[in-house]
Order: sequence, then C-alpha cells, then structure tokens
Amino acid sequence: MTAPRPVIAVDWGTSSLRAYALGSEGAIRDRRASDAGILRVPEGDFAAVFRQQIGGWLDEQPDALVVMSGMIGSRQGWMEVPYCPCPCDLSMLAGGLRRLDWPDAQRWPGVEVWVVPGLSTETAPGLPDVMRGEEVQIFGALPDLFHERALICLPGTHSKWASVADGAVTGFATYMTGEVYDVLQEHSILGRLMTEEPAAADAWFEQGVTLGAEGALLHVLFSARSRVLSGDLPETAVRSYLSGLLIGHEAAAALRDLVRPPPQVALLGAPALETLYEVALCKLGCDVRRLDAEVAAKGLFQVASRLLDGDTIAGLR
Amino acid sequence: MTAPRPVIAVDWGTSSLRAYALGSEGAIRDRRASDAGILRVPEGDFAAVFRQQIGGWLDEQPDALVVMSGMIGSRQGWMEVPYCPCPCDLSMLAGGLRRLDWPDAQRWPGVEVWVVPGLSTETAPGLPDVMRGEEVQIFGALPDLFHERALICLPGTHSKWASVADGAVTGFATYMTGEVYDVLQEHSILGRLMTEEPAAADAWFEQGVTLGAEGALLHVLFSARSRVLSGDLPETAVRSYLSGLLIGHEAAAALRDLVRPPPQVALLGAPALETLYEVALCKLGCDVRRLDAEVAAKGLFQVASRLLDGDTIAGLR
Repeated sequence: MTAPRPVIAVDWGTSSLRAYALGSEGAIRDRRASDAGILRVPEGDFAAVFRQQIGGWLDEQPDALVVMSGMIGSRQGWMEVPYCPCPCDLSMLAGGLRRLDWPDAQRWPGVEVWVVPGLSTETAPGLPDVMRGEEVQIFGALPDLFHERALICLPGTHSKWASVADGAVTGFATYMTGEVYDVLQEHSILGRLMTEEPAAADAWFEQGVTLGAEGALLHVLFSARSRVLSGDLPETAVRSYLSGLLIGHEAAAALRDLVRPPPQVALLGAPALETLYEVALCKLGCDVRRLDAEVAAKGLFQVASRLLDGDTIAGLR
Repeated sequence: MTAPRPVIAVDWGTSSLRAYALGSEGAIRDRRASDAGILRVPEGDFAAVFRQQIGGWLDEQPDALVVMSGMIGSRQGWMEVPYCPCPCDLSMLAGGLRRLDWPDAQRWPGVEVWVVPGLSTETAPGLPDVMRGEEVQIFGALPDLFHERALICLPGTHSKWASVADGAVTGFATYMTGEVYDVLQEHSILGRLMTEEPAAADAWFEQGVTLGAEGALLHVLFSARSRVLSGDLPETAVRSYLSGLLIGHEAAAALRDLVRPPPQVALLGAPALETLYEVALCKLGCDVRRLDAEVAAKGLFQVASRLLDGDTIAGLR
C-alpha cells in the first residue's frame, strides 16, 4: 500500500495529542507528542494547537493529507463527526470521514484535513456503546492478527473489548475498569490501606483475578480490607490484589458475553498494563497475543489510503 | 424478658454514637445521639465522651449495666474484643463479651461496662469477612421475623447480608455498594453528568437493577455515560440509574451465593435506602419484609439479659 501524497496522522484524544509524519509506505518519519488533549486546549482554539504542532511539517509538505482520530471528532472537539455503526470495516469507516473547513486553508491551500468517525454499537437492546480513536488502532492492528476472528482488548481508563471478523469490527463493549481502580485507590477506604508499591502481576494479583472473575465484585472488593485487617494480605500487596479483582471481573465478563469465543485475545496497550491483562487472561484460559501498541499511525495511514482511492474520494468530495 | 438492673445500650460506630436508657422490659426511656464516632474522639479519650453522653444517666442509676457494640470494640476503639466466629447465636455472642476496666470505676462503683464482640465468617475458603455493630441489630430483629430461616440485608456504606437460621447467624457477606456509589458520583466521569436529583426507585432505577444483576458491572457502569451522550438517559436520572446498577449487582450476587434460598429477605436500614432495596429485591423475585431499623437497642438489651443470666455470668466474671 502506498500513498501518492504525504500523509500526516494525528491521534488527538482527551488528554494528549500524538502526530506522525508518514512516509509513502506508512513508515513513521517524524513524530510529535503533546499533552494538549482536547480538554486542555485554551478557549477551544484547536487551530492554534494544530499550527503549533504540525505547521512545520505542512510548510515542508504543502500537499499533505492530514487525517485525525479521537475525541477531536466529538461534540467537545473541533468538528463533530457522526459515529459509524458496527459492523464496520475500513471502507465503511473511510466513508464516514468528514473534511474540516479549517481557518488556515489560505496559508496552506494544498493541504486537506479530514476527521475520522468513531464507532457505535449496542451491547444489548437499548444499550449504546461508543468509541473514538480506538477504532484506528484496531484497524492498524488487524494485519498483525493470526486469525480471521479475534477479540481485541485495549486496556485503559475505559477499556475496550472489540470483536473483529473478516476485517470488520462486529461489536465492542467498554469497561470502566481503569477509572474505578483510580477512584477506589484515591478516594475509598481501600486507598488508606495501601502502600506505594504499584500493582504487579504477582500471586496476589492472580488471587484477585480468580475472585473477581466469580462475579460478586462489590463483595470481593471489601475482602481487600478484611484480608488486610485479618493479617492475611500485606498492605504492600493491596494494589496488586485490587487490580486483579477488577481486571478479573472485567475479563471474565467480556469473555462470557461473547456469542462465539474467539481463538485468540489480542492485547493493545501500554506494556505494564498489557502484562497485567496477559497474566489475567492466561489465568482465565485464553490464548493471548500482545501487539505493538503504536498502531494508531498504521490505522490512520490505511484510512488515508482509502481516502486517496478513487471510489472513496468520489463518494466524499 | 426482664432485666433486674437498669440497662444502658450504646451503639458506638465509626461516625456516630447512639445511647439508650432502657426500661426493665427493654423499652427505650431516654436516648442520646452524637456524631462522636470513634474516629472523631479527640486523642482517643473515649472515657470523656462516655461521661459526657451518659454520665447523667449513671448518676441516676448507679447500678446500671452498660453494654456497648460497634467499632468501639475494634483495634481503633476503646478495647479490642475478638470476633465470634459464625455460626453464632445470642448465647455465644454474650459469651464473647469483655468487661471494660474503665477509669471512672471509683466515681460509679456499681456500674459495669461491657463490650460486645463482632462476628467473623469466611465467605469462601481463605476469604474472611467481619462485622461490628450489625450483629446486635440482627439479634434485635430476629423476634420480628416470620420464618426460622431468613436473609437479612442491612444496606449502607458497607452493606451486610446475613443468613440466619434457628436463632443463629450462620454466615454473612459485606458489599462495598454505598462507598462505591459515593466515590463514583463524587470523583468519576459519571458524577460530571449528574444533576442534583437524588436516587429514586423509579423506572430508571429498575432498568439499572436489571442490568446490574446481569453481572458485567464495570461495563454497565459505562452505559450511564453512553446513554446520556446518546440522549437516551436524562441527566436528572443518572443517580437513580447508577444506584440501580450497583444495588442490582449487589442483590443478585448476594442471592446467587446462597446455598439454600431463604423464604424471605428482611431489610434493616434507613427508610429511603430500604425503599430502593425493596424495589430492587422485588424486581429480582424476592419476598421482602421491611423491619424497624432501630433494633440495636433491642439487641443490646437481649445481650444484657443474657449477661444477667446466671450461667453467662459464671463463665464471664
């Protein structure tokens, strides 16, 4: 796959911005990372942040195609782009791109800026779920999967579990695991029992996974306290144990809700978090594969390539 | 049941103190309520709070028997009293009483002060659970139960679900429901979506109960956000919905873990919370009975009566 024009990929989320200048085959030639997430942009002046971060690349490549994903396409972002419903493949995602009418068009008249839609699904009748940004990571990771069908887990503040088959995202579900972990350790009675040691994939974590997977989450959370009081759980292990309870609950629920279990679960996240999820999923009997987390640029390059494809362009412009 | 000496019952928990001067049949003649919970007693001077709250009663009744329950008997309290393991009936609980060697014995030489033990159990092999204070409420409520076997739910920050049979607490489990609700509404992304309306037992609450009972709690919590964003859930209903998700999850787990379902679930709590739990439990198919929440004094009176009983005294003094 080659692109006849230079492509700039921008993954612009709530708390950070990552930009990549890509070569004609999609290789990363240069990169920028900033904490100017959409909620941190003063007065919503996205254009100013955009100029500051990638203006230099645009001067060098005045015919660049810029493709942006993430919360930048949300109601709170620069331009709202409607979600594409699942099942959704790469062509359908590219078909949902919206071109940004941006204020610097006169300075760089050859540049086009496009925003990727997010995905929507229903995890049960009447129960909507959404993602923005993870979809390009998923499409970026698809070529590295061993199987036609897989479950892809993107662990984080709001973990996503996406089912993919034959190149399409068929559905997904979000879990508030990371955020619940954060608020419990910072604001609950459990936080007061903890020492500084970070969560590790140790025997306490594995005990937590087994107990969390059994389902009575609000009960087993309390055991993090009662076991410390009884002298059974060291305070240095509370984070690992709590992390195991939550990840075990999440993973067991995500695996249980599947109509047809996939042959493999692929992990796409920060290395430390991937390690925890890998241990938890192995404990629950899964075949796990860790993927390179920096796949947003790959996915955005693929979307850009579809955009440069005649058919897609005809439909969009 | 009558007591040959005046009984003063003190329910002294983490955040409050409630004291009752009881008549010979256990009727409440006078009462005190204070926010001097054990964590709010300056420099741990429990004796000063005790004198201030019930010294007047002791002057009038210098032969009083004082029985105290709750966190006052914990490691952070006035005197640590070991837990009684389940199954535990009233005689066994009374057998675990410890007499306090208190500093005002010279001023009121005829007064005896006793501290009630809490209960301990294992909810699974190696998984300890404990209560301090709820046990006297449970024993106070037993005479009002219709059946020999029942499940008693005491909703709150840390809800307790106790199985009782033939006058004994056979086991129990704690759920962190109230605390998780508080930290999520105060510190999570869900809190930012809420308006001031308190949780009500409405249709949104019932929807939450059904979804929470299905088990994937960390996923359905996120639906409180995605449904607001999709316009499906009004911001005024988020508290009710969130409350339903958590209570539904708790109740379904508590009912599922039972070896033998009881004919009735009895509720023992504040009226507003009892209403939410009653609606949730009915939705899950239970026969529910609401009990008077002010049963701590009744339970403490029963414990005191056992203490005045010859056999118990012989074993204790």
